Amino acid sequence: MTNTLILIQCPDKLGLVVLISGIVARQQLNIVVMREFVDHDSAQFFTRIECSGTNTHPETLKKAFKDQLGPEAFVRVGPYPSDKRIAVLVTKEYHCLGDILVKHFFGVLGAEVCCVVGNHDVLTSFTRRFSIPFYHVSTEEKSKQAFEEEVLQILNQYNPDYLVLAKFMRILSPEFLARYPNRVINIHHSFLPAFAGAHPYRRAFERGVKLIGATAHFVTPELDAGPIISQQTIKIDHTYTVAQMVEAGQEVEKTVLSRALKLVARDQVFISGNKTIVFE
Amino acid sequence: MTNTLILIQCPDKLGLVVLISGIVARQQLNIVVMREFVDHDSAQFFTRIECSGTNTHPETLKKAFKDQLGPEAFVRVGPYPSDKRIAVLVTKEYHCLGDILVKHFFGVLGAEVCCVVGNHDVLTSFTRRFSIPFYHVSTEEKSKQAFEEEVLQILNQYNPDYLVLAKFMRILSPEFLARYPNRVINIHHSFLPAFAGAHPYRRAFERGVKLIGATAHFVTPELDAGPIISQQTIKIDHTYTVAQMVEAGQEVEKTVLSRALKLVARDQVFISGNKTIVFE
Amino acid sequence: MTNTLILIQCPDKLGLVVLISGIVARQQLNIVVMREFVDHDSAQFFTRIECSGTNTHPETLKKAFKDQLGPEAFVRVGPYPSDKRIAVLVTKEYHCLGDILVKHFFGVLGAEVCCVVGNHDVLTSFTRRFSIPFYHVSTEEKSKQAFEEEVLQILNQYNPDYLVLAKFMRILSPEFLARYPNRVINIHHSFLPAFAGAHPYRRAFERGVKLIGATAHFVTPELDAGPIISQQTIKIDHTYTVAQMVEAGQEVEKTVLSRALKLVARDQVFISGNKTIVFE
Amino acid sequence: MTNTLILIQCPDKLGLVVLISGIVARQQLNIVVMREFVDHDSAQFFTRIECSGTNTHPETLKKAFKDQLGPEAFVRVGPYPSDKRIAVLVTKEYHCLGDILVKHFFGVLGAEVCCVVGNHDVLTSFTRRFSIPFYHVSTEEKSKQAFEEEVLQILNQYNPDYLVLAKFMRILSPEFLARYPNRVINIHHSFLPAFAGAHPYRRAFERGVKLIGATAHFVTPELDAGPIISQQTIKIDHTYTVAQMVEAGQEVEKTVLSRALKLVARDQVFISGNKTIVFE
Repeated sequence: MTNTLILIQCPDKLGLVVLISGIVARQQLNIVVMREFVDHDSAQFFTRIECSGTNTHPETLKKAFKDQLGPEAFVRVGPYPSDKRIAVLVTKEYHCLGDILVKHFFGVLGAEVCCVVGNHDVLTSFTRRFSIPFYHVSTEEKSKQAFEEEVLQILNQYNPDYLVLAKFMRILSPEFLARYPNRVINIHHSFLPAFAGAHPYRRAFERGVKLIGATAHFVTPELDAGPIISQQTIKIDHTYTVAQMVEAGQEVEKTVLSRALKLVARDQVFISGNKTIVFE
Repeated sequence: MTNTLILIQCPDKLGLVVLISGIVARQQLNIVVMREFVDHDSAQFFTRIECSGTNTHPETLKKAFKDQLGPEAFVRVGPYPSDKRIAVLVTKEYHCLGDILVKHFFGVLGAEVCCVVGNHDVLTSFTRRFSIPFYHVSTEEKSKQAFEEEVLQILNQYNPDYLVLAKFMRILSPEFLARYPNRVINIHHSFLPAFAGAHPYRRAFERGVKLIGATAHFVTPELDAGPIISQQTIKIDHTYTVAQMVEAGQEVEKTVLSRALKLVARDQVFISGNKTIVFE
Repeated sequence: MTNTLILIQCPDKLGLVVLISGIVARQQLNIVVMREFVDHDSAQFFTRIECSGTNTHPETLKKAFKDQLGPEAFVRVGPYPSDKRIAVLVTKEYHCLGDILVKHFFGVLGAEVCCVVGNHDVLTSFTRRFSIPFYHVSTEEKSKQAFEEEVLQILNQYNPDYLVLAKFMRILSPEFLARYPNRVINIHHSFLPAFAGAHPYRRAFERGVKLIGATAHFVTPELDAGPIISQQTIKIDHTYTVAQMVEAGQEVEKTVLSRALKLVARDQVFISGNKTIVFE
Repeated sequence: MTNTLILIQCPDKLGLVVLISGIVARQQLNIVVMREFVDHDSAQFFTRIECSGTNTHPETLKKAFKDQLGPEAFVRVGPYPSDKRIAVLVTKEYHCLGDILVKHFFGVLGAEVCCVVGNHDVLTSFTRRFSIPFYHVSTEEKSKQAFEEEVLQILNQYNPDYLVLAKFMRILSPEFLARYPNRVINIHHSFLPAFAGAHPYRRAFERGVKLIGATAHFVTPELDAGPIISQQTIKIDHTYTVAQMVEAGQEVEKTVLSRALKLVARDQVFISGNKTIVFE
């Protein structure tokens, strides 16, 4: 059954819950789940409301909110659930892509995988077994700009809502990111902010940590510093080699990215400055 | 600063959020945190609302809700935070009591410990070091009824809101429990419903489980079957003896009971049939 | 690089470590990892020794141990790593099979998947995309015995070391299990011994637990009562419907079964009565 | 019952297990638990052996090992268990001290708390309730050197094996640390190496992490960079204020420090360069 989903972000003020829920009620929509949060630092109010039924046109509902909340308010209204379109960028590692494609195949990803782009070609056969287009864009003998331009041209054909960096081991330029603002999701193989940057498992090994982890986050121009969506750690011990950390870590990376994608696909994530608000 | 806390449980119907938040708004109270949940099985609506300020008399506010929601509605309004009074029942194990008394001593329990009652006397000296009255009520040479009567007489002096069974190893009669309905909290040393009843660690050892855990729950006449508030497990392995399980388990028991007490002290727990709704 | 793996189980006695490590040293093998455990209840000694190099013939080494340890000792010697052959039994759920086939495709399962047998056919296309034979054996219009006979005939062609029940929702008869003693691994969707048997998520929902989990175990004739290899739980709350528990639980089931298969594939698991000894 | 504990660290070479276990066997000691590890980076071998009985004099046994292993080997032999003496340094926070003193009171710490030293006096009454001496050494109106000298003079009276920094919020000088090399244990309120230094919860809040944690480590002159003994994280979300992170974090700090102390008290921890080897 399709419901109606309402997402609102606006400056906080007295009486917002009654104002907003009143508008919903006057449209004869029944609230199934309503979550709200006030970020006191930014004085912003965030709410996510699932309503049963779709008897009001989204544009009508949106207008009703905008009229009351003013032009500063961000309002999104639409049917729910509603699959997002994602494009996946990969390098050589298979595990995050594998999880995504298997879930997609069985219709439980909550998102439509439109294509996979790799800067290596090792995942071509795997991807195509799932009848998903795979594009190999080599980084060799071309500038970073040329590489990114080539990737963007492929992506443009598909008009994805989100780019998922499923162990894509290249740093994207600010110019590239500006094309998908707040719409690029990365999985980093450490519990950020620890071990931002290259070789986190090697550095975890050298530091002798007793935990390793993974972080899914939105990508911003500053490396591994964007808003965090989900994180998890697992226990390791002194017997772990770097290779064993990589192997154990892959399970966590897969789980964390999968969790983040589900949250984003279900519109449970707001971005507020450099943080996320996740209505779980 | 003192806020106002509103707890409501009532039959679910269309428009409850707008109705309730409207009443709050008309009383000039600003919502700090509002959480709601509909239990579709029982068709009950639950909400917990923290409002800043205390400018409305609780009874006035309560009447406003009752007028609108009808006599079936459960409504509680009061200042927040507001320490609950608890009495702790123990046998011989120190760890849960220790955690409670240390937190109480430093004013972070969120509850007032009025007394400790033990069916053994081994925790007397420890309790008194914290200037808390300790009562030893032996079970020897008396009926269960006589024992419980003696305990009740002590408790009556203190009028506690909740009884906390901090590893109290006696089963309380339905008659006793009827005196504190939904107000007795127990910590059981297993992840219920596994290993309900006696000797859970011994049985966990014999079963060869790879996890042990603890469960905090409200006590009902059926043994270890009341509404669960909080649970946690930890990993063990084949090298654990029963004694090592007990030792490792005590840390979890302490953590889980502590968590449950905090949730109850802050009125974050509703009971709905044999389940809890926990607004974390 | 191939090493030599030595697995020994024998009655415990004084000096076993020096005796066994002496034999290893006399064969000019260097111990990479040695783990040992004494089960005091059964008075059995267990050891797992990885040695670098393969300069001694396995049979020679095995004879050396048997000569010293006596006929009661179980001794296995062989190259390491050495892929086990597994057959996977499924019903309709995709997630455990998906994880196994993806890992197998990329050569990181540590086991060779020889075939998949399903009592439904919904996973046929998925399995074949990985170039693995899929056999559909319906249970309809035939006795349980006839069904199992049909499955056994298929399995006989492949001579698997282990059968993996990857959400195979049929109970296997003692006669069937006797054909693969200690060689059938199941994933059960609860933290056993809680919710053994059918519909664990439904029962977890009804009980109002705050944790759900999964258990990988060897299958014995008594339902869900065999030696546990691995278990894990995750936190849930009152907002979870049964369907949401199923969805969240699938991630745990996948992780736990994957972990158990890796441990078994690497010969890190001994069975001792109704328990496992897992040298992690 | 008292056993014999043997700790050995020496350069790795072929046949060490048989050599060492042979010496144990010739002394008529039966191995209860033997754990060993080779750090391939440093080519060092580490072993921890618990033997039943104490029929050999520790010095005789130690000499037997030194004769065979050479002067480079570190060898320690002694009765087991054998309580370590610890001194606890605190500032204002009660929670880690509380856990230590309660466990000490009930004889389960595995260590003897000889005194508590605070640079503030707020924990005086609490400590004395447990009949443990408390020394208040103010940092005001004196140099860091003078402060540390005063602390050292107090500690000298007690001759502790380990100093435990139970939320001691001063940085100790290299000169101070040189007096207790590898014998100062700190609890840091983050999952190091994330948020080393001051105000980790504030910085965790600003970074928007979804996990917070704690790390117990040996103290070296470089701040928060010494060998890690134990770490743990817990999940948080966007609703946590800094104060709520502090509160939730305290539970983890307590658990992690408690775990580290137990491991150290039982001689389960070796230091190897900037890492620990923990035989759990």
